[in-house]
Amino acid sequence: MSAETALTNELLEALRSLLGDRVSTSLAVREQHGKDVSYHEGSPPDAVAFAESTEEVAQIVRLCAEHKTPIVPFGTGTSLEGHIAALKGGICIDLSRMNEILEINAEDLDCRVQAGVTRKQLNEYLRDTGLFFPIDPGADASLGGMASTRASGTNAVRYGTMRENVLGLTVVTADGRIIRTGGRARKSAAGYDLTRLFVGSEGTLGIITEVQLRLHGVPEAISAAVCAFDSLEGAVNTVILTIQSGIPVARIELLDEVQMAACNAYSKLDYPALPTLFFEFHGTPAGVKEQAERVAELATEFGGRDFQWATQQEDRSKLWQARHDAYWAAKALRPASGGWATDVCVPISRLAECILETKRDIEDSGLLAPLVGHVGDGNFHLVYLIDEEDEEEYRRASAHNDRMVMRAISMGGTCTGEHGIGYGKIPFLQAEHGEAVALMRQIKNALDPEGIMNPGKVLPE
Amino acid sequence: MSAETALTNELLEALRSLLGDRVSTSLAVREQHGKDVSYHEGSPPDAVAFAESTEEVAQIVRLCAEHKTPIVPFGTGTSLEGHIAALKGGICIDLSRMNEILEINAEDLDCRVQAGVTRKQLNEYLRDTGLFFPIDPGADASLGGMASTRASGTNAVRYGTMRENVLGLTVVTADGRIIRTGGRARKSAAGYDLTRLFVGSEGTLGIITEVQLRLHGVPEAISAAVCAFDSLEGAVNTVILTIQSGIPVARIELLDEVQMAACNAYSKLDYPALPTLFFEFHGTPAGVKEQAERVAELATEFGGRDFQWATQQEDRSKLWQARHDAYWAAKALRPASGGWATDVCVPISRLAECILETKRDIEDSGLLAPLVGHVGDGNFHLVYLIDEEDEEEYRRASAHNDRMVMRAISMGGTCTGEHGIGYGKIPFLQAEHGEAVALMRQIKNALDPEGIMNPGKVLPE
Repeated sequence: MSAETALTNELLEALRSLLGDRVSTSLAVREQHGKDVSYHEGSPPDAVAFAESTEEVAQIVRLCAEHKTPIVPFGTGTSLEGHIAALKGGICIDLSRMNEILEINAEDLDCRVQAGVTRKQLNEYLRDTGLFFPIDPGADASLGGMASTRASGTNAVRYGTMRENVLGLTVVTADGRIIRTGGRARKSAAGYDLTRLFVGSEGTLGIITEVQLRLHGVPEAISAAVCAFDSLEGAVNTVILTIQSGIPVARIELLDEVQMAACNAYSKLDYPALPTLFFEFHGTPAGVKEQAERVAELATEFGGRDFQWATQQEDRSKLWQARHDAYWAAKALRPASGGWATDVCVPISRLAECILETKRDIEDSGLLAPLVGHVGDGNFHLVYLIDEEDEEEYRRASAHNDRMVMRAISMGGTCTGEHGIGYGKIPFLQAEHGEAVALMRQIKNALDPEGIMNPGKVLPE
Repeated sequence: MSAETALTNELLEALRSLLGDRVSTSLAVREQHGKDVSYHEGSPPDAVAFAESTEEVAQIVRLCAEHKTPIVPFGTGTSLEGHIAALKGGICIDLSRMNEILEINAEDLDCRVQAGVTRKQLNEYLRDTGLFFPIDPGADASLGGMASTRASGTNAVRYGTMRENVLGLTVVTADGRIIRTGGRARKSAAGYDLTRLFVGSEGTLGIITEVQLRLHGVPEAISAAVCAFDSLEGAVNTVILTIQSGIPVARIELLDEVQMAACNAYSKLDYPALPTLFFEFHGTPAGVKEQAERVAELATEFGGRDFQWATQQEDRSKLWQARHDAYWAAKALRPASGGWATDVCVPISRLAECILETKRDIEDSGLLAPLVGHVGDGNFHLVYLIDEEDEEEYRRASAHNDRMVMRAISMGGTCTGEHGIGYGKIPFLQAEHGEAVALMRQIKNALDPEGIMNPGKVLPE
């Protein structure tokens, strides 16, 4: 993809005098910063600036604003819809060196971190405090990036997404002001919810440089379980009734029979190659026992066989390993292929129907596409295993994805549960939100009148 | 308060031809619509329009926009910071006739209602479904109004506020377009979070006409408890440790010794006149028992005496009656007085300190002001009982309130946990959010360039 080159010598000199050798125009650095882990084509920025403080980000933004030069913020580059591609060139601001944990308020269950801190780094830091941060997208993403894309993961069914777990933000606006949103109180009715506006705005309204996060107490007891089902409906109906019964499961993950076969082969396991649910329960010892027993009853009612329950750390780890390796197991089904991760989310009453129609369509399309899902939220992903050189196969996958997304929207669902819009899903945003997209555009124009903040993302031009 | 009169004959005729006798200019109707239940002075609109559909609201807004006439949305008039005062005259749109429950999706735990449906009406309707809607501000407010002010109440510690429980909205914009925000999926990463932007915007960005709400399963078991403490610190420390331990209490309410004495006198009870915590636990029978036992242990550790536990509906009702009658009990302490309800919220680690300093200041100020608090959230209210004719006493209360709010802000808290800004707390919004208020103003100007939506509220002019 060719980008307009937007970098002037004057701007480059100004950045160099500000940052010294923390500005790079080397092709390798630029290319690494213009391509995420998705199947979307990348587009390198004209230069990469490595910022070390909020004040520095503000100075970089002010320089870029002066030169009307596009800005793309970068955390770990693990986005999935082309979020970091510099479609119009400009400056990538790499925030990974802003990796300081600024405060832990154990008594209030919150903390403040710089945007470049990753989720694993934070949890490592919290290890001896009895607290943890539950949001776990697959990658070890930066917390600023996770806030920007409204990320979630396997724990969202119990702990919510970044929407619920970000208390406040430090943001650099498109004209280089530094603002603080939200606060440390557990609730507030004071003015417009700027925090939630920036969460999920993917760098198009401003740059998140610090994040105030809600933390959670490490549960006293954790248990896990796995259960295979003869039919996918049985598995999904178990999920629906679990949620409806208000059982506070921490995780419910679905792997379909294709994925289970892949996991068996990859991890040398001998689970039945059937639709399978993985559970995790958090609470008191008596509480997790009660939860597991109630879910086991529901599962049995819907054709679940051999509900296996694990309370020991070691057994749990083994059980979840298969889930965690799902992507690599899928890739191993067709070693030379590229993996294209999709993402839709529907009201759970429509989940079985949506998955079954989607799987029939996989078959009709002659695609290989294992399925995993954070099904407690109605969210599921396929990984299309396609030959990246084969344009026809790519087009078939792309057409299948279009149909799946439109199916989810027609069922009252969303085109993306957790990956975001980037530049890959802009047409679907319009299909899902209609006239409301015009309102989003009004807000974008108000906060970024020159259109320099991550241009070409989220909103149609 | 005198308002600019903004109603032209032309607009009035247009409204009459649209709505017939559902437009009123009678003084009684106008006055009733210009004054909420706060101590703030009211200001009647020039006319009141009773809308019966979203389309009608849109037509009214388009007419007002054409005439650049202010619009104030009205639900039940139970706001607490002057939200509905027509400071610049104009048209009040009364949404109370839009009281239809549009859909209940029991399987997905959500529903859609018109903005005028009240919370009690919804819960009455849900009675036989096994579901309920937990957000309970004191008044039987409309759900549109509750969304507009980001309301919460006693259950927020477990179920969240309107921020967490609104899934989507139908909104009429300042130029009369109808948009839908959010959706029915439990999570989404699709575009800017317009839902959360409108929740808490108090009618200044658009008019909420329909609300998609999250519902919750009625818990299998409910138990309640009450416990008096020798010291307020002991009570608050019990709260802090309960929250930190992750015990999923549904309610923890604090009444101070002044309020308890008032409740005893008003409801003919014989609780000790000491700082007292009221608890409610939701879960399985075994779960609520375990929760209550763990909290009882914590309470005992912090000087709680005689932890009384009630599982029967009748006993629970009696126990909670005192809490529910707290406002009337407070008023009865000084029958001729007006009650001025305050509202601040701090991180719970600062709660004891904030309450104790505030109580010392009550004493120093010679005020009578019982205290109740949703302390699991760090949120508490005073009711100043003041002679409304006594300007000096009013000024003393007002000065006390100023100090309390600034104290809360200085402790990392907020000027309002749940009542909102209205026109009563605008200076505090600025003190709390600083430069971020300028960003709120940019958004306001973008979505309401003529400034006709509930002018004079939330933001400084």
